[in-house]
Amino acid sequence: MNETGLLPLLYEDLVRRALLEDLGGAGDVTTDAIVRPGAGGQAVIVARATGRVAGLEPALHAFRLLDPMCRLDVRLGDGSDVVKADAIAHVTASARALLAAERTALNLLGHLSGIATATRDVVARLEGLATRVVCTRKTTPGLRTLEKHAVRIGGGSSHRYGLDDAVLVKDNHVALAGGIAEAVQRVRERVGHMVKVEVEVETLAQLDEALATGVDAVLLDNMDLPTLGEAVRRARGKALTEASGGIRPENVREVAETGVDLVSLGWLTHSAPSLDVALDVEA
Amino acid sequence: MNETGLLPLLYEDLVRRALLEDLGGAGDVTTDAIVRPGAGGQAVIVARATGRVAGLEPALHAFRLLDPMCRLDVRLGDGSDVVKADAIAHVTASARALLAAERTALNLLGHLSGIATATRDVVARLEGLATRVVCTRKTTPGLRTLEKHAVRIGGGSSHRYGLDDAVLVKDNHVALAGGIAEAVQRVRERVGHMVKVEVEVETLAQLDEALATGVDAVLLDNMDLPTLGEAVRRARGKALTEASGGIRPENVREVAETGVDLVSLGWLTHSAPSLDVALDVEA
Amino acid sequence: MNETGLLPLLYEDLVRRALLEDLGGAGDVTTDAIVRPGAGGQAVIVARATGRVAGLEPALHAFRLLDPMCRLDVRLGDGSDVVKADAIAHVTASARALLAAERTALNLLGHLSGIATATRDVVARLEGLATRVVCTRKTTPGLRTLEKHAVRIGGGSSHRYGLDDAVLVKDNHVALAGGIAEAVQRVRERVGHMVKVEVEVETLAQLDEALATGVDAVLLDNMDLPTLGEAVRRARGKALTEASGGIRPENVREVAETGVDLVSLGWLTHSAPSLDVALDVEA
Amino acid sequence: MNETGLLPLLYEDLVRRALLEDLGGAGDVTTDAIVRPGAGGQAVIVARATGRVAGLEPALHAFRLLDPMCRLDVRLGDGSDVVKADAIAHVTASARALLAAERTALNLLGHLSGIATATRDVVARLEGLATRVVCTRKTTPGLRTLEKHAVRIGGGSSHRYGLDDAVLVKDNHVALAGGIAEAVQRVRERVGHMVKVEVEVETLAQLDEALATGVDAVLLDNMDLPTLGEAVRRARGKALTEASGGIRPENVREVAETGVDLVSLGWLTHSAPSLDVALDVEA
Amino acid sequence: MNETGLLPLLYEDLVRRALLEDLGGAGDVTTDAIVRPGAGGQAVIVARATGRVAGLEPALHAFRLLDPMCRLDVRLGDGSDVVKADAIAHVTASARALLAAERTALNLLGHLSGIATATRDVVARLEGLATRVVCTRKTTPGLRTLEKHAVRIGGGSSHRYGLDDAVLVKDNHVALAGGIAEAVQRVRERVGHMVKVEVEVETLAQLDEALATGVDAVLLDNMDLPTLGEAVRRARGKALTEASGGIRPENVREVAETGVDLVSLGWLTHSAPSLDVALDVEA
Amino acid sequence: MNETGLLPLLYEDLVRRALLEDLGGAGDVTTDAIVRPGAGGQAVIVARATGRVAGLEPALHAFRLLDPMCRLDVRLGDGSDVVKADAIAHVTASARALLAAERTALNLLGHLSGIATATRDVVARLEGLATRVVCTRKTTPGLRTLEKHAVRIGGGSSHRYGLDDAVLVKDNHVALAGGIAEAVQRVRERVGHMVKVEVEVETLAQLDEALATGVDAVLLDNMDLPTLGEAVRRARGKALTEASGGIRPENVREVAETGVDLVSLGWLTHSAPSLDVALDVEA
Repeated sequence: MNETGLLPLLYEDLVRRALLEDLGGAGDVTTDAIVRPGAGGQAVIVARATGRVAGLEPALHAFRLLDPMCRLDVRLGDGSDVVKADAIAHVTASARALLAAERTALNLLGHLSGIATATRDVVARLEGLATRVVCTRKTTPGLRTLEKHAVRIGGGSSHRYGLDDAVLVKDNHVALAGGIAEAVQRVRERVGHMVKVEVEVETLAQLDEALATGVDAVLLDNMDLPTLGEAVRRARGKALTEASGGIRPENVREVAETGVDLVSLGWLTHSAPSLDVALDVEA
Repeated sequence: MNETGLLPLLYEDLVRRALLEDLGGAGDVTTDAIVRPGAGGQAVIVARATGRVAGLEPALHAFRLLDPMCRLDVRLGDGSDVVKADAIAHVTASARALLAAERTALNLLGHLSGIATATRDVVARLEGLATRVVCTRKTTPGLRTLEKHAVRIGGGSSHRYGLDDAVLVKDNHVALAGGIAEAVQRVRERVGHMVKVEVEVETLAQLDEALATGVDAVLLDNMDLPTLGEAVRRARGKALTEASGGIRPENVREVAETGVDLVSLGWLTHSAPSLDVALDVEA
Repeated sequence: MNETGLLPLLYEDLVRRALLEDLGGAGDVTTDAIVRPGAGGQAVIVARATGRVAGLEPALHAFRLLDPMCRLDVRLGDGSDVVKADAIAHVTASARALLAAERTALNLLGHLSGIATATRDVVARLEGLATRVVCTRKTTPGLRTLEKHAVRIGGGSSHRYGLDDAVLVKDNHVALAGGIAEAVQRVRERVGHMVKVEVEVETLAQLDEALATGVDAVLLDNMDLPTLGEAVRRARGKALTEASGGIRPENVREVAETGVDLVSLGWLTHSAPSLDVALDVEA
Repeated sequence: MNETGLLPLLYEDLVRRALLEDLGGAGDVTTDAIVRPGAGGQAVIVARATGRVAGLEPALHAFRLLDPMCRLDVRLGDGSDVVKADAIAHVTASARALLAAERTALNLLGHLSGIATATRDVVARLEGLATRVVCTRKTTPGLRTLEKHAVRIGGGSSHRYGLDDAVLVKDNHVALAGGIAEAVQRVRERVGHMVKVEVEVETLAQLDEALATGVDAVLLDNMDLPTLGEAVRRARGKALTEASGGIRPENVREVAETGVDLVSLGWLTHSAPSLDVALDVEA
Repeated sequence: MNETGLLPLLYEDLVRRALLEDLGGAGDVTTDAIVRPGAGGQAVIVARATGRVAGLEPALHAFRLLDPMCRLDVRLGDGSDVVKADAIAHVTASARALLAAERTALNLLGHLSGIATATRDVVARLEGLATRVVCTRKTTPGLRTLEKHAVRIGGGSSHRYGLDDAVLVKDNHVALAGGIAEAVQRVRERVGHMVKVEVEVETLAQLDEALATGVDAVLLDNMDLPTLGEAVRRARGKALTEASGGIRPENVREVAETGVDLVSLGWLTHSAPSLDVALDVEA
Repeated sequence: MNETGLLPLLYEDLVRRALLEDLGGAGDVTTDAIVRPGAGGQAVIVARATGRVAGLEPALHAFRLLDPMCRLDVRLGDGSDVVKADAIAHVTASARALLAAERTALNLLGHLSGIATATRDVVARLEGLATRVVCTRKTTPGLRTLEKHAVRIGGGSSHRYGLDDAVLVKDNHVALAGGIAEAVQRVRERVGHMVKVEVEVETLAQLDEALATGVDAVLLDNMDLPTLGEAVRRARGKALTEASGGIRPENVREVAETGVDLVSLGWLTHSAPSLDVALDVEA
């Protein structure tokens, strides 16, 4: 349990595997040759660029796994906005642990802070609008929990977490069921009462069909702006509207200005660049 | 064993975990409600943008894990250059497996093809030069084997795989050892005869010190172009030269034109955008 | 993929661990001493009591793990109602695999069929009423996916699958937030748009407070029948109603006759007795 | 190591998996939204019914996994007989850990205490008799170690732990070997000197055949009471006698009154109802 | 299931881990560079010395894990006595799989055949005597199942498999209990009826005390030959006798000639040299 | 992190698995029956023979896993030379943990110290010569990291750690490539710049061919002494020379006297006998 509310149980295994991936069977041969086992060290994690911190605790966990006695002093935790040279955290640990865990920690922190930074920037572009920013299931294999956390730290929220926690009826489902109405009916008969239902539509005709079934939300996929605007008007008061398809920072505001409730960007988790962070060992 | 030479043993576990991450405990509740268990289906994986395919076999493995009887027909395997609408592979499987594995397969394929595409493009910028493109240990946690594979498919190669398979003496090591010569000597006494030694230097003075120890390679970190050029001249015939630090597609050619043997880009694995790929279920 | 739509990926690991738990390190020492490796065998899984079959495929998977060449012939699959002596499935495998996997297979099948049978019987008691039967998170550690599946096979459905897929605001949450309204508001600000919200209430006053927040469902906990009836009336058209607390087969109909939408029984998964099933090896 | 002598190494993994099964990838979304990370809390685990406590330490381990700094204060540990409202243990932990681990802890404690309670009650019915109560391999997949522990806490003991630690020659073995004598001889040639041999028999003729081989114990399966009595007489002084088949609390005493050494009840582990336990968060 | 009766489930995970240990993250870089993916190959596993084969199936499993379509043709399976140049098995597989799995397969086969060979040779030294050869828990971490199998293939048998399947009261237990009688009594009260009890003794006085409790077996530890002979005489007809402590091939016959029932050699599993085996790739 | 520089992350899982292998599901039934849970104990690990200690920390980790509060007091850590009766370490822990972890700890310590002792003795035989002793990939499955560590503690070093960290072109590779030159060229095109290349040769003609390609090292396999001497002369100044094939303690000095740079002994890891160590519980 920690200040960001991310349970260590949800990421410990990932950090362990990441370290083992880097250490191989032989460990850090350079450090083992140069640094004697008992030597202590101190280091600071610093930002090398402007952005928002996310994933600091999983990143610091790498040091804890190699040196359970290490001291971790967080200065700018998850959600902090940093500029170049800001000190994010201080680490006091055995010198060997510092050097062996460095890359694993920075890889995690840079990747997740990159996502939080990108989300923050997209959210900022929507200032003054009621539209919310959501991410998708287009996440990096093995990192979904942390990437969704980073989006939230950036001010966005999540669509479904996975295939299991909400219904999204997509074009292929509709085709296999023989129509939107039939698909929604089958879903209603089967899923529990705590599961919401959303239907993906690409045309206004499909939208009308979906709204007629009383679904909770509609995913308006790849519509041009005028069509999207009309779809939002038709759905108002009937279902939540969510726009998706090719939304990037550059065009997100014009999409949101249609009045759509949510904009959905796979880009946040599959293509946001890493934030540059570094570890400086102190004398 | 497969045509790209990537042993399934090296990625099976990752694909399994990625699927379970998406399925949760309850599985694909939408598909389970709509598609009856026995129904078969056919789908094609298509490119939605220009790029180079990488990671197709791990991606297709997702379908195999959900339907061991599925048929996988590769049209444009790893290393193929694709344009929008190209059919990459056909999949015949139970309709449920098709839909439940879709996102996992595409997440892997898009991520790895994005890296291969970026690498290919960087390599293309160096046409006519002898400089090789290498990636670093700045990889996504859990994905190193596949990301390094994608770089190779893109025409690049790898620096160290991990901390265990080569020596890279960095500034922190030098500081802790009390000098480059001392650090290299300690390394030589300890590591096996099949391990190469590279030293990171930031100034020409450090370079001279490193070359005097007879190391195999020098990592020229964050040097401006004139200094880098001078460093390359001094090292010629004595050690391999590798430039690193802030190298991006935009400036890679001017760095390479210094005559440096290798350019090293963390960017390839931590920030290359995903390639857009999709799965179309066929009637 | 199989006819019940339960993906093997969701249970393979459990079956493997169950077998290893029974085999220990030394394996089936009795069978190994008596039966020669090459000997084949045939067996039939039979019901020893009246009930409904559930979990047959995970159960049969135990034979497949010990003899990949075995032949499995399902006669009365998940959802079938059986009486004593009914043949559920025939298994042709090496004699050693038959005997070594027998107990693991029967333990799974008996446990899950017991839950399906109990659920079926509870559902039958509600004939003519619109009330649905749901199970809870009171499942056996490690078996949630399969136990929830068994409930569905018995005609019930699921409340939340876990802590992650829906919001249930309970008394402790309300106490910590300082009121139902405050708790619901915090939840709305944080969770994604695809997540439903239910609030647990114990009194009519709490119910009114919950309904005022516009929640999706209310959990009416441990109310006596007259109070429950009044609660159902107040909530009608505003939120789904779910009764819980001490509901057993004996009293489920009188609870349902209040008109409540759902009755929730932890009993189905934590206390339903096993169905008696056996494996008869054939000459 | 703890006061019940159950090594944590034997259950840690199970508790971890049970927590992850409940948390999914997204964690406890309700609690995360309502309770701030730093908040502490105090709770008491109470009995809601009469019974015997078992499995308290694995149950409490759930809190430790989510909050390593939690304080656990056991009042009525394994083996304690409790009545409604008894405080079993106090837990001081972060409020988030308390709420997120609650269900996992109670599921374990209720399940195992249910088995211990049932065993205690069966043992009580045999007061004044020398017959011992034993459980079987009919356990819940993944829970054998803990369920056998619960039986012991209830006053019973174990037959074989698994297929690997003792020989039980059953009807199928006899059929495949071509006779009891042949089966026992094959076993004697193969198993180590520290392994006991028991033979399952259904008739007095089979019993005589088994006794002639000098086995350590005989399992008298599904015999009516007069036959069982005769079997016990014939075996006296030659082999331990164990009755099995359809033994329930209701008939266990009359079976035991035949003088049989052991009564074996699969019912204890596959069908004993859960003990009702709850967690009350304190102001 | 296979001809030696060793269930693959008991060794698959070990072989997988052994392969991954050799492949690291980058795989077989030499073979990947030289051999094209599609190339097939044929090889023969040959003995390079005289000995007894054991562990062939786990060894061959390494090829199956890298090439599921490989063909394995066993010529001299577990239990076969081989001389130099004997062909043990033929393997047809992709050339890459052959080369990448070679070392893992040979390491397993050489290690286990070394143990079987050593056991066979010790058994041969006891020709004409009734004494049986047993191994101990002094096995290599992670390999107990396979090493105990190898001993059995060599003609020996097992003492306890582990701490869980039989009672061995050792000196430390006696000291903590306050005497042999007290220790045995505590054990009898607690363990199930299918568990045998053995007591370790070092003197004739202790032996008499142990025999008085009616234990199943006595472990005569580190006795000189005359004492051992006297111990065997005293125990005759009362308990099985087992000699242990410093027994090696050189002195095993003189120990056995005391008439002791069993001789126990940790040496078989912790110090037997590997059998030399090789893989020859055929043109 | 510890004084030998072996990161616990690299061995924790192995020690855990070794303990579970010994404990089975039922745990240490003897100790559980005799020793009450709360009892404390003290013990000393002693050498029973002359040798060099290696693997002490992984061995002691077994006690930590069963009793996290234990106190470990190292007297003669890795690299210490011991004689019979030397106290290697003192352990204060719960008596149950002491007894249950004893065998696992000693199995690890004996095995690894056996390898370190054998290596030390081989190194001693080369006194006055410049030749270094290296081990191979002929390690026990699952133990490579620790066995290579033990060799280093004994004064030897490692050839490749695995298939992934260096290139060794063997006879089969040459055959498949169609010649040494072709094989080396393919390797050079593919592997990274930090990977060294060694070629295995059996004749002087092959040696010349290999040297012509400019490889880093040559493995001189199974050459008689005069040929080996000539090979060393030809390779001087061109490539490192390594002798392998049938090298044992008895003949290692005459091989080294040819002036070869390295002698490679699979024997060190696959056939070195265990060092005798014991645990004495103190009153």
